[in-house]
Amino acid sequence: MKASLDCIPCLFRQALDSARMFSADPALHERILRDVLGWCKDMDMSKPAPVMGQRIHRRLREITGVEDPYLSAKVHQNRLAMRMLPGLRDILRTGKNRLSLAARLAIAGNIIDMGAAGDTTLSGVRKAVRQAVKEPLIGNFSAFSRAVKKSTSILYVSDNAGEIVFDRLLIEELGPQRVTLAVRGFPVLNDAVMADARAAGLHKIVKVIDNGSDAPGTVLEETSPGFNAVFKNADLVIAKGQGNFETLSESPRPVYFLFKAKCPIIAARAGVKIGAQVLAISAILKKVREQNIR
Amino acid sequence: MKASLDCIPCLFRQALDSARMFSADPALHERILRDVLGWCKDMDMSKPAPVMGQRIHRRLREITGVEDPYLSAKVHQNRLAMRMLPGLRDILRTGKNRLSLAARLAIAGNIIDMGAAGDTTLSGVRKAVRQAVKEPLIGNFSAFSRAVKKSTSILYVSDNAGEIVFDRLLIEELGPQRVTLAVRGFPVLNDAVMADARAAGLHKIVKVIDNGSDAPGTVLEETSPGFNAVFKNADLVIAKGQGNFETLSESPRPVYFLFKAKCPIIAARAGVKIGAQVLAISAILKKVREQNIR
Repeated sequence: MKASLDCIPCLFRQALDSARMFSADPALHERILRDVLGWCKDMDMSKPAPVMGQRIHRRLREITGVEDPYLSAKVHQNRLAMRMLPGLRDILRTGKNRLSLAARLAIAGNIIDMGAAGDTTLSGVRKAVRQAVKEPLIGNFSAFSRAVKKSTSILYVSDNAGEIVFDRLLIEELGPQRVTLAVRGFPVLNDAVMADARAAGLHKIVKVIDNGSDAPGTVLEETSPGFNAVFKNADLVIAKGQGNFETLSESPRPVYFLFKAKCPIIAARAGVKIGAQVLAISAILKKVREQNIR
Repeated sequence: MKASLDCIPCLFRQALDSARMFSADPALHERILRDVLGWCKDMDMSKPAPVMGQRIHRRLREITGVEDPYLSAKVHQNRLAMRMLPGLRDILRTGKNRLSLAARLAIAGNIIDMGAAGDTTLSGVRKAVRQAVKEPLIGNFSAFSRAVKKSTSILYVSDNAGEIVFDRLLIEELGPQRVTLAVRGFPVLNDAVMADARAAGLHKIVKVIDNGSDAPGTVLEETSPGFNAVFKNADLVIAKGQGNFETLSESPRPVYFLFKAKCPIIAARAGVKIGAQVLAISAILKKVREQNIR
């Protein structure tokens, strides 16, 4: 999904928020902002917005020498979610359709996003959980459910720290023995890396791989050959969060996306309202389905 | 008040909104945005944000050849406010302190802002009126009231179309015979020009002058000698709206500002919460008052 002009003001807002995470020096914030303005002038608008975010974060690391200013936030988010985990398991036990409820709870965890319009507070996360219990999943759940049933290998592309604990519920429901979990290769925003998979105890139940990239999404031109092989060969790919949707919605293979629509542009693209719990499908899958209907 | 780094993403948001008012052509929207990005890189951050807004709108007019895409919106806003005027007069009659209530109602009209975070809908304006009736004016009203009493000449610097109808209530309360009303010299956003003062019937009760400038605020280096003479010599200057506060808060003479704090940066500068009905004073007046207290 290529960036919209509306992404530009939002990316500047995020660049400024991020600059303030990297450093307390207002002179540096100004330098970053002018730097980003300079690039943006000639930016390739056919690329997805997370590619731009990736570039901003690379520059922030380069200028400040700081590797991961989101580390303590991620540790906190994992702890917060781990404390909620027993209660979430109780909720899941009450579900009529456990796969659907587990998917909705995994989406609830997607509120823990330090990129755009997320909410990392306990009350914000609790609100998302209440929504998961009450509100439906928007999308073709029966197609997803069929795809899950017939797959022997599933790649689960995670999104954020904290959220990855919520993902554990869905991964357990899918059956860990057939799941490979992918995390980002390097820190960017509060996106989950290997340490976060470990904090959620996921390394004990599934194979965890990193994608070798520092993009806040999945940019296949940049991810590692190892990741790309799993991505290509898995029977089913499930990708979490807006960044993965933006970067993989036109990918060469079918992908199912689970996310909370937090951005108006992405919500419009997915054909849902802001705040919706979305099960979206990639363009190629949409095409196949339309051909089958004809 | 110099621009904050936080003004940059917001100015881009506004530039994009404005570009869409000027033209329906996405290629033009992109051209404008890249153009603005190019300037901003080397922008003088010591200038107030409305100077940047002025530059964006000049460029939009230059590229599109369109003089005033906000004209029909302004006509609509004046009509909406004129229909509310009898009801507003009824409300004013019930006020214990008519000057304070008239000031609050004039501030309620400041919600009609197409620049930043305004609300031009009937329900939005009605909500602002209910707030004007219920909530206090934040600021030193007794000092303002004293200044009004002892002044024989008052310059009233208006802000937006629609809002200018609400200003009429306060101008009538101040006594039209001693008031000169200033409007912008040229169209920019929905800022009030001579036609809007006429639509509110103000040309029949006060002397109306235009300031000769196309800034969405009052940039004294650019306003006409005629306006500047009135600005310098009036016993009291009252300026409406955030744009006038941003451009005149460090002006060489005392100014009283009346506005609704819609932007978090301006609210913080004025020391109030977002949404507050503010009576602020210029830096020079603040200094005089502090010296008197010592």
